[in-house]
Amino acid sequence: MELKNDLLLRAANGEKVERTPVWLMRQAGRILPEYREVRSKMGGFIELVKSPEFACEVTIQPVDILGVDAAIIFSDILVIPEAMGLPYQMVESKGPWFENTVKNVHDIENLRVADPKEDLNYVLEAIRLTKKELNGRVPLLGFAGAPWTIFSYMIEGHGSKTFSKAKKFFYTQPQAAHQLLEKITLSTINYLKAQILAGADLVQIFDSWAGILSPDQYREFSLPYISKICDAITEVPVTVFAKGAYFVREDLGKLNCRTIGLDWNMDVRESRNLIGAEKTLQGNLDPCILYADYKTIEKETKKMLASFGPSKHIANLGHGVYPDIDPDKVKCFINTVKEYRF
Amino acid sequence: MELKNDLLLRAANGEKVERTPVWLMRQAGRILPEYREVRSKMGGFIELVKSPEFACEVTIQPVDILGVDAAIIFSDILVIPEAMGLPYQMVESKGPWFENTVKNVHDIENLRVADPKEDLNYVLEAIRLTKKELNGRVPLLGFAGAPWTIFSYMIEGHGSKTFSKAKKFFYTQPQAAHQLLEKITLSTINYLKAQILAGADLVQIFDSWAGILSPDQYREFSLPYISKICDAITEVPVTVFAKGAYFVREDLGKLNCRTIGLDWNMDVRESRNLIGAEKTLQGNLDPCILYADYKTIEKETKKMLASFGPSKHIANLGHGVYPDIDPDKVKCFINTVKEYRF
Repeated sequence: MELKNDLLLRAANGEKVERTPVWLMRQAGRILPEYREVRSKMGGFIELVKSPEFACEVTIQPVDILGVDAAIIFSDILVIPEAMGLPYQMVESKGPWFENTVKNVHDIENLRVADPKEDLNYVLEAIRLTKKELNGRVPLLGFAGAPWTIFSYMIEGHGSKTFSKAKKFFYTQPQAAHQLLEKITLSTINYLKAQILAGADLVQIFDSWAGILSPDQYREFSLPYISKICDAITEVPVTVFAKGAYFVREDLGKLNCRTIGLDWNMDVRESRNLIGAEKTLQGNLDPCILYADYKTIEKETKKMLASFGPSKHIANLGHGVYPDIDPDKVKCFINTVKEYRF
Repeated sequence: MELKNDLLLRAANGEKVERTPVWLMRQAGRILPEYREVRSKMGGFIELVKSPEFACEVTIQPVDILGVDAAIIFSDILVIPEAMGLPYQMVESKGPWFENTVKNVHDIENLRVADPKEDLNYVLEAIRLTKKELNGRVPLLGFAGAPWTIFSYMIEGHGSKTFSKAKKFFYTQPQAAHQLLEKITLSTINYLKAQILAGADLVQIFDSWAGILSPDQYREFSLPYISKICDAITEVPVTVFAKGAYFVREDLGKLNCRTIGLDWNMDVRESRNLIGAEKTLQGNLDPCILYADYKTIEKETKKMLASFGPSKHIANLGHGVYPDIDPDKVKCFINTVKEYRF
C-alpha cells in the first residue's frame, strides 16, 4: 500500500522533503491520558505488550492525537531475552526484573536463538494489525535493542548505574561474552526481518547503554554486532541510536545504515562532521525543554531545526519523552517542526 | 611542613616528575576491609563523616595499605547542602535522601551561605588531624561538589536517572536557579578556603552529574560557577572533574585551574587536543578493568600511562573505584603505575 505521508522515509533515504518529518521516541504510551485510560482497564505492562489489539490501539494514538509523521510499534526491547529463554517482569516504578540471569557459558548454551514466528508472534500480529489500521497514513517503525544493551540486562538482571557485572563479564569471560552477543545478534536479525515482513517500513536499533562502555570496549563488544545487524537488514532503512556513544561517532558514520540518532549532549555540527555528509541524522532536542513554556519550546525547536538544516534530518528528542510531560507541550514541539520553513 | 612525597603536587603544577603519581577517587572507604571493620563498630555514614577521628583514620588507610601518592579527606559532597540548611540521610544501598527540597525562590531565600567554621568544623578538624597524622608523607586533598551537582540534589532530593526536576527548574525558574547556584558557589568557596587553611594541599571539584546537561545548559548553569570557584581559589592547585562533560572540554581547558579529570569514555589524545598542552590531566582507567585478571590490569594500565605521556599526568581511574573491587587488584593498578618508566 502506498503511503500518504512518506516524509520520514524520504528523509531517511536522503531525498528532498517539503519539510522536516517529526516523531518522538516513547511517543506510544505513558504520556497520553488516552493510553493511561485504556491501560487502567487492563493488566500489567508485559500483558499489554503481548496483546496485539492493545498494542495496535496505543501505537496509533500519537498519530491521531499528536500528529506525528510516523508510528512506532508499542513494544519493549526485552522481548528478545524472553524469546531466548529469560523471562522478565516489569516492576512498577522500578523497571525490568529478571529472575534468572546469565552467569557462565553453561547458561549461554541453554539459551535459544529466538524464532520470531514461534516466540514473538504477538509483536508481528500487532504490526500486521497496525499496518491495516493505519491504512497508509504514516510509516510504521519497528525496533529492537542493540546486542550490548540486551546483553547487559541478561547479565545484570535489571537496570544499573555502572553495569559493573556486565562489564566484569567482558573482562573475565570475553569469549563467552562474544558467544552470547552473537546469539543475541542472530535473534535480533531474525526478529527485525520478521517485523519487516509483517509490515515495518523502517527499523531502529536502540543502544540505550552505549555510553557506559569505554571506546575500546564499545568497539569490541557493541559496534561489530550492530554492524552485523545493519549488514543483514537490506529490505528497509535502518536507524541506529547509540545513546552516549559520542566517542564512536566516526565509526557510526561508517555503518551500513541510513540514519544515526543523536542524543541532546551531542553538538549537531560536530556530529555532522564526524559522521559525514551522507547519513541522515535524527534528534536531538533535550527532552527537558518540554517542561518549559511554549515560547521556549518554540525557540529551542527552531534553533535545533536550523542547526540540522533542511535535508537529511528527522526531528525528534535526544531521548525518549519523559512520562510527566504535558501532551500539549509535545504538540507545541511537533507543530513547530511542521510549520518551520527554511 | 615539607612533604616527603610531593609528586602529585609537582605533576599538578606541570613540573617534571620521576614517575607518574597515582591515587584513586573513593580510595578512602568502602573497598578496604580495614575500613569496613572500623565502620562496623560505629554508626551510619553521616555520623562517620562527622567524626574527625574516624575520618582521619580511614583517610590514612589507603596511604598505608595501598601506597597511593595522596590522601583525600574522607567526607561527602552533600555536607554543603546540609550546611546551607538542608539536612540529609544516607539510606543503605539507596544513597542520599533529603526530606526537604528546594521548590521556589522562597525556599532559596531560607537557605544560608555556609559558614565553614560554624557548620563544617568537623571536616576542618578532620583535615587538621589528618595533616598531623600524615606527618608530611603525602599531600592531603580536599574537595567539594560542583554547584550544579549540589543544586541537583537540593532540587531532586536524591539521585535520579534524568534529573528532570532539576533541569525543569532551569527552564521554568532560571533566575531562581542562578540565585541558588550563586549561594552554593559562595558556600563552596568559603568551604574550600577553610579546607586549605586547615591544611588541604590541593582541592578537587567534582561535577558528578555534568553529563546530564546539554552543552548550552552546561555553559549557562554549571561552567560559570566552577569558573568562579577556580578564580577564587588561588592558594593551592585546583582539579576539576566534570564527569561526562566531553562536550565542553575546550571550555574546561580555559578554566583557571591546574588539572582536568577525564572519565574513561574520554579519548586521551582527543582530550589533550581539546584541553590544550598547558593543563595537567588526571585519570582515566575504566574502573571495571579492576575486575579483570592481574595481567589485563597491568596491560591496560600501561596502555593508559603511555597514552598520557611522562608529564602533566596524575594516574587515576576514570570514576570512583567500585565498592566490590578486590584491594589486591587496586594494588596491582597502583604498583604498575609506580613501576612504569617512560
